Amino acid sequence: MSETCRVTFSGDGREAVSAVVAAGSSVLEAAQKCGVAIDAPCAGNGTCGKCVVTLVSGELESERNRHLADEDYAAGKRLACVSRVAGDAEIYVPPSLAAYRNRIRVDNEPSAGARNYRELLRARGFAPNTNIQSVPVSVGEPSLDDPMADRERFLAALGGPHRVSLAALRKLPLVMREAGYAFHALVREAEGETPAIVLDVAADELTPFGIAVDIGTTSVSALLVDLANGDIMASANAGNAQICYGADIIHRIIESAKPGGAERLHRAIIDDCLVPLIGDMCAAAHIPAGAVMRASFTGNTTMMHFLAGVYADHLRREPYVPAFFELGGLRGGDLELGIHADAQLCIAPSVGSYVGGDITAGAFASAMADSEALSLFIDLGTNGEIVLGSSDYLMTCACSAGPAFEGGDIACGMRATDGAIEKCVIDAETMTPAYSVVGAEGAAPVGICGSGLIDIVAELFRCGIIDAKGKFAREGGRITTDEWGITSFTVAFADETEDGSAVYLDDADIDNFIRAKGSLFAAIRTMLEAVGAAPGDIENLFIAGGIGSGINFANAVTIGMLPDIPREKFSYIGNSSLAGAYAALISHEAAGAVDATAAQMTYLELSTYPGYMDELIAACFLPHTDASLFSPRSGA
Amino acid sequence: MSETCRVTFSGDGREAVSAVVAAGSSVLEAAQKCGVAIDAPCAGNGTCGKCVVTLVSGELESERNRHLADEDYAAGKRLACVSRVAGDAEIYVPPSLAAYRNRIRVDNEPSAGARNYRELLRARGFAPNTNIQSVPVSVGEPSLDDPMADRERFLAALGGPHRVSLAALRKLPLVMREAGYAFHALVREAEGETPAIVLDVAADELTPFGIAVDIGTTSVSALLVDLANGDIMASANAGNAQICYGADIIHRIIESAKPGGAERLHRAIIDDCLVPLIGDMCAAAHIPAGAVMRASFTGNTTMMHFLAGVYADHLRREPYVPAFFELGGLRGGDLELGIHADAQLCIAPSVGSYVGGDITAGAFASAMADSEALSLFIDLGTNGEIVLGSSDYLMTCACSAGPAFEGGDIACGMRATDGAIEKCVIDAETMTPAYSVVGAEGAAPVGICGSGLIDIVAELFRCGIIDAKGKFAREGGRITTDEWGITSFTVAFADETEDGSAVYLDDADIDNFIRAKGSLFAAIRTMLEAVGAAPGDIENLFIAGGIGSGINFANAVTIGMLPDIPREKFSYIGNSSLAGAYAALISHEAAGAVDATAAQMTYLELSTYPGYMDELIAACFLPHTDASLFSPRSGA
Repeated sequence: MSETCRVTFSGDGREAVSAVVAAGSSVLEAAQKCGVAIDAPCAGNGTCGKCVVTLVSGELESERNRHLADEDYAAGKRLACVSRVAGDAEIYVPPSLAAYRNRIRVDNEPSAGARNYRELLRARGFAPNTNIQSVPVSVGEPSLDDPMADRERFLAALGGPHRVSLAALRKLPLVMREAGYAFHALVREAEGETPAIVLDVAADELTPFGIAVDIGTTSVSALLVDLANGDIMASANAGNAQICYGADIIHRIIESAKPGGAERLHRAIIDDCLVPLIGDMCAAAHIPAGAVMRASFTGNTTMMHFLAGVYADHLRREPYVPAFFELGGLRGGDLELGIHADAQLCIAPSVGSYVGGDITAGAFASAMADSEALSLFIDLGTNGEIVLGSSDYLMTCACSAGPAFEGGDIACGMRATDGAIEKCVIDAETMTPAYSVVGAEGAAPVGICGSGLIDIVAELFRCGIIDAKGKFAREGGRITTDEWGITSFTVAFADETEDGSAVYLDDADIDNFIRAKGSLFAAIRTMLEAVGAAPGDIENLFIAGGIGSGINFANAVTIGMLPDIPREKFSYIGNSSLAGAYAALISHEAAGAVDATAAQMTYLELSTYPGYMDELIAACFLPHTDASLFSPRSGA
Repeated sequence: MSETCRVTFSGDGREAVSAVVAAGSSVLEAAQKCGVAIDAPCAGNGTCGKCVVTLVSGELESERNRHLADEDYAAGKRLACVSRVAGDAEIYVPPSLAAYRNRIRVDNEPSAGARNYRELLRARGFAPNTNIQSVPVSVGEPSLDDPMADRERFLAALGGPHRVSLAALRKLPLVMREAGYAFHALVREAEGETPAIVLDVAADELTPFGIAVDIGTTSVSALLVDLANGDIMASANAGNAQICYGADIIHRIIESAKPGGAERLHRAIIDDCLVPLIGDMCAAAHIPAGAVMRASFTGNTTMMHFLAGVYADHLRREPYVPAFFELGGLRGGDLELGIHADAQLCIAPSVGSYVGGDITAGAFASAMADSEALSLFIDLGTNGEIVLGSSDYLMTCACSAGPAFEGGDIACGMRATDGAIEKCVIDAETMTPAYSVVGAEGAAPVGICGSGLIDIVAELFRCGIIDAKGKFAREGGRITTDEWGITSFTVAFADETEDGSAVYLDDADIDNFIRAKGSLFAAIRTMLEAVGAAPGDIENLFIAGGIGSGINFANAVTIGMLPDIPREKFSYIGNSSLAGAYAALISHEAAGAVDATAAQMTYLELSTYPGYMDELIAACFLPHTDASLFSPRSGA
């Protein structure tokens, strides 16, 4: 074996690139070295089976794997993460391998949920107000007798002390003359910013724009907003480009602690995700990115660390301390976002290592602190975070639910986007499923999202196909066991799906899902106990996150994921983190209220809370070891 | 002729690069397109003869030129700027062609002049003070019971509201722990900056550093300074990388007005000059560039526009209005200088299109406004700027002297650096010159700097070799006329020089020089008249700039460049612009005093001042049409 090898990557519609790497490096490492995008949800552990490449020529040291059928292996298919370079090699990378990173979806229309953001805020007394105004200015024409510089002439006319941003200064000489010395200035007079700043100048009245961004571990969602009136000009979604360092947040934190790692994670979210996302939204709305004068970010504590490029390793080490809760005073230029260099950045504060700005913003968006009624807010993102409380108090905790509710750690899991099975009923006798799929009428399935998982597990349980421990209890038909001993239930056969691969749920998926729902339920029980409340005291139960609007609350109760309270108290509120980001974006009063929400929250550390581990063990059954917690339901 | 041609550039010690350009493009344009550095002092007009390349193969449309001898042309030598591409071609570019741009000289020792900066300031009551302090901080160790985030823990211990810079936040988690929770923070509490900002954190006491930079049209000079005590840690000089767009400021302004031009000029000074210059100084002093917490810039009005990337075309169009006089509130990150992103930038204010921050800073450094005595301050940079006044008033003007005093527009001209002939005496009978050269004892000459030019012209005139109009009046010996009709006086024969090329002065050089000295003298006369003063009222005459410390004031008077006043009133104060930049860097009070100096200045527009043109015509003789202005001098 030579000491270094040249690995060449080819793909569809782009030039081949190659990297010289040490023998023994993984194909994934070689790909990262030469900038070839390969998502690696399991962070290179060979467990998710999602990084299948094809060896075109040369050698790789690579064992067979349960994710590769014999005929696939024979055809040169390999998992990039567990295949090691043993000589020069050429490798074909299908475009689907960078699906999370490269797919940006932009719409000129806001989503159904986002359409109501402004009205919901207005009803709570928050109107668009970011202290940015378009001000008309008239100046005298310069002459040999009056050769005052443009900036000083402009400021004298504007009155009062002002700082002129570089962006505005660069335009001023031409704007002033082209507009015949009567033009407009966009001025921000924000609290704590002295003097006021001139952000932009133009011949005509100026509109300030803003972006609200929810940075999820898996996906990034954003809105482009007219700050003058709160109108949503465009919305966008993209995969979080950090997926090449793992789908799981812990893998990314580990990567970030390596030399240069914090910078790599930072650049992945900025350069490979936010800058193109913002650029695409601005292009859709026909405005330059420099017209974005304010940006609001929400996300979990780790994502906020990576956004800022801050060392995050202490988040995963006892005593689990973040580098920061709040991050004030940043400007667009600080993060090289391509927006106005002096844009104000509002970053929603975190309250703990695992309760971040997505939760403070989401709790604000739910309005749970506006009322004396007890509310339970659950964000089913890549992890599960919970807030319990009212206008009197807010208690929060994070349960290590993992990404199952977003389709992570599930072989055929996916987010609640086109092709996701979001609802399912199974015929108890024939075991034939009937499902509905997100997207156009009659669309073929691609995978299963969180709400679909809940239905399928509930139905498998109801039909006796799996037992209370989640083990398969029936045989035949759609239940098959492969040579590796993995049993699975086929939801959609290969010839019924969009991409020709069967959609199924296997032992490992069901185990992952039961652990996820168990940790969520145990956390809810523990919090209720901590505040001395019973499930029946809960007046509102808000479910937020990417689990999908198709969530069947009855099924979620059936499997012991949510407490058994009247169904009318449940509501699915979608991406509440983005709703909170929008609120902080268009109203500095709302931004202050998000901060106040964070300040009100008490963080409960579950891992050291007495009794939590017992609750967790008890909750990892269907529905629970204590069946009395759940009322009997027809068919269950 | 094909429509596009591939031009390949080779050089010593680097890979060949090529560009595809339209047929008819100049070689200079092709070089710029693929990033090959070719200085173009005359901005592509074919007049300076300094862009000689060699055609290795292929075709160029190129006329012979007086700058190329027959044998050179036959050997493939061509002027890059006036040679047009007519087919594929390979061109050799000698390294000397990017001499201005690529040569950065760094010294760990300050220059002789800079060594006194601090003491001169101290004598005037300005001590180092930039409101930046290293503050010791102790925090409690985080625990599961006290999981407050690092930033919030740190700020609570620091007391009072603070903003934590991203750079400091990125270090905080590791510094805090590595230092055992007792460490240091570098805090700036500057006026108009609320709240105070934490710039850096470290285990040990922190030292803030700063850079003072004088951006000349031709050269850039810089100092790296310990802000705590004003010590100069390193000094550096480099050519202004904008020289590829012309040595003359007007050519650069024209370039900057083309599409993308302001950005090109901006990037040339930032990326190709300031970033490497700062990097080299910091490397010499063994500090990271991020430890530079304050930067002070001086330069003419145009250079300050390009520094900021601001449209500058109105500077050359009546009524000659700059885009700005002052430029407050900028930070290191705004200009991508590679220093601390939150470094404060002090940019010396301009007072007119042709009287910039170099003059306001220089006038401050001269201390002329500290006294009631009338002083005349003359900066002989690439142009000539003059300030006349005292503590009562300051009047300023710019004379279009051109770059002759810095060696520009002179065939063998150069700055007062190693190899420059800085003094000269000519034997009236044999016409043999005796000269001294800047640099090591016995160094061979390379060219002629400003002070050398004054001596040579004065001596040529004294010896009757040239007449009062600057025309050659004697023949033979060192006086030769070439086939283009250009007559020249050889100061050093080819075999006496460093590079084997003769050092000479020709008709055109003498014309340029007489125009330069004439415009300076006319400006002085006009200003004196404007304030109702006579030459005899001048108590101090300060000469600043790159003309060289070897300036012979008697000769400068002999040729009618400076007024005929007692020699003891003259003093050469070197780079006063850099001295002013240093002052503003180490003391915010001094920075305020530079601003106050600018506010005190009245700008006199010579071009419209009655009688100036008559003065100019009268002064373009040796010494002047009115000989009574100059007392008879032995030998003259």
